[in-house]
Amino acid sequence: MNRDDLFSCFEQEKNIIEQQMRIDIGSIESDTLRELLEYGIFNGGKRIRPILTVLAAKLCDHSGEIDASKPEISPQSLAIYKASMAFEYLHCGSLLHDDIIDHATTRRGKACTHLVWGDHSVILAGDFLHVRSMLLASQNVGESDIISRALGAMIEAEFLQQHNSTRDMIDESDYVAVIEGKTASLLQAACQWGGLLMKCSKLELESLAVYGQKIGIAFQIVDDILDYAGNENKTGKALGNDWKERKITLPLIETFKKANAEDKAWLEARLAESPEERFEHFGYVTELIKRYDGFVYSNEYACALIKEAKDALDFFPKSKWRTMLAMLADSIVTRET
Amino acid sequence: MNRDDLFSCFEQEKNIIEQQMRIDIGSIESDTLRELLEYGIFNGGKRIRPILTVLAAKLCDHSGEIDASKPEISPQSLAIYKASMAFEYLHCGSLLHDDIIDHATTRRGKACTHLVWGDHSVILAGDFLHVRSMLLASQNVGESDIISRALGAMIEAEFLQQHNSTRDMIDESDYVAVIEGKTASLLQAACQWGGLLMKCSKLELESLAVYGQKIGIAFQIVDDILDYAGNENKTGKALGNDWKERKITLPLIETFKKANAEDKAWLEARLAESPEERFEHFGYVTELIKRYDGFVYSNEYACALIKEAKDALDFFPKSKWRTMLAMLADSIVTRET
Repeated sequence: MNRDDLFSCFEQEKNIIEQQMRIDIGSIESDTLRELLEYGIFNGGKRIRPILTVLAAKLCDHSGEIDASKPEISPQSLAIYKASMAFEYLHCGSLLHDDIIDHATTRRGKACTHLVWGDHSVILAGDFLHVRSMLLASQNVGESDIISRALGAMIEAEFLQQHNSTRDMIDESDYVAVIEGKTASLLQAACQWGGLLMKCSKLELESLAVYGQKIGIAFQIVDDILDYAGNENKTGKALGNDWKERKITLPLIETFKKANAEDKAWLEARLAESPEERFEHFGYVTELIKRYDGFVYSNEYACALIKEAKDALDFFPKSKWRTMLAMLADSIVTRET
Repeated sequence: MNRDDLFSCFEQEKNIIEQQMRIDIGSIESDTLRELLEYGIFNGGKRIRPILTVLAAKLCDHSGEIDASKPEISPQSLAIYKASMAFEYLHCGSLLHDDIIDHATTRRGKACTHLVWGDHSVILAGDFLHVRSMLLASQNVGESDIISRALGAMIEAEFLQQHNSTRDMIDESDYVAVIEGKTASLLQAACQWGGLLMKCSKLELESLAVYGQKIGIAFQIVDDILDYAGNENKTGKALGNDWKERKITLPLIETFKKANAEDKAWLEARLAESPEERFEHFGYVTELIKRYDGFVYSNEYACALIKEAKDALDFFPKSKWRTMLAMLADSIVTRET
């Protein structure tokens, strides 16, 4: 199976997942809620979380019952796709709330949902998606608290991040603690969820947890790099939001650590400014990070995590799904969006 | 057992529930989140939802294992109190979000949580309480989707209410459909939850559902009466919010139905105005509702529901708990706060 074939497999998984989501969202009675969610959810998302669930389930499916490469989708396979939506809903619900919280204006090149439908409806719609994901969890497997725990960790991490943004500077371990909660907990749970749906062994579950956690941290590091060095036309969102909002991320932490006294003083002065004042210096801080290899360091950090993630997959016998999960891990560090 | 003894039993239940909540909230790591929740949650709430869960559990406890009137609290009894917090958390989380949505300024005589801690933190804290309640549900009984379904119904009802507020006028059935979802679904689930925790029979569960639904609808009707005719010093919140925000509730629906052509035209004109303009006429609309017996009608409507709720309790043998649940039902229509 060559690279192109594998990519078309990803596309195929994504299409089945989105189709199930459209059916589910389409069944909502309230016109406003349904239309809001159709606007807010179907916007070219990568659907990494549900794809992880589906691939993890297939990896643990030793009987080969749920192989979607067969032309017809079996009932068991359909159940996996439906369950996988839980993590996409959790993610989308949090994005809706985050965009209000961050006063964001665009997402994936479109006006943010709250600018179209109002904060009121969007707060409720986010709550609705959280609930919908809990329902999917409780209908599927006894371990529904895996979702609650992941969402709880996300929220606690948001508070930790908020606390960190009031400190002069944070170190790498503070940063990793935040992104473990904010991003990795959900990707990790999405992987574990796939295994649990197939009643995987304890050791399989542990390997999936390691894989999910490592790619989750790497994913957020790349996100944080892209917030400085991405291409707005590709990411579909404005650059510099972290810098403006004083979210201190790995490229900046590394730069601050290595900077000479003069550059350090300059950074400290900027970090003490208002968001608007600080944002005026976005071009220069990006230059500074480049000069101190902050992006190179962060990228290497992410690559090392991806290596560990792929090592965890070695616990499983070779299969098409293992190859796809390894490719997915690699794509996290090479992505531009 | 006389009335005073029964009231002190309610106090006792409430104190045990609040003590458990304080322990639980106290264990949160983030200082901001913990302090925010302590501010937002411990404000003299009546704790009706968890009290309903505890009383329903005791009503279905045919072995008498969880009777808290004994000086020591048994482990089984403690588990019921812990589980009962789920519905209070769900309620409090939704209040936090509602107060942002409604631009409310005071609750129970204190500045609203979002005015003290900011929308950002309060949206997240509301999410956190929702998650915490799901966790409590999944840890306790297989039927954790009872909570998700209740919360889902609440959110869908908010959208229905929003939709209704754009219509010229709504009728009684539209109104009841909203409050069934917005308020009754949660009180109903809180009662069922108590029964489920004790592995009650199907018929017991149905009786609890009827009781909970009827008192839930009555509760909201009384709330809607108090929003016009309450005493601000007692309710601790400003009057007239529903009228201002164009939430059309039972007293107004009944008045509109009975009003003569002139009064109907006046009401229609007010309903077409901006919230601020409309609010200037709050005194007069209250007079109008009184004149057309809108409050009397609404109160009778609520009393009839309370009667039905108490009839549903007759399915259970006489007990202290049955008496307390009947008293609680009565207190809903006589309450001033």
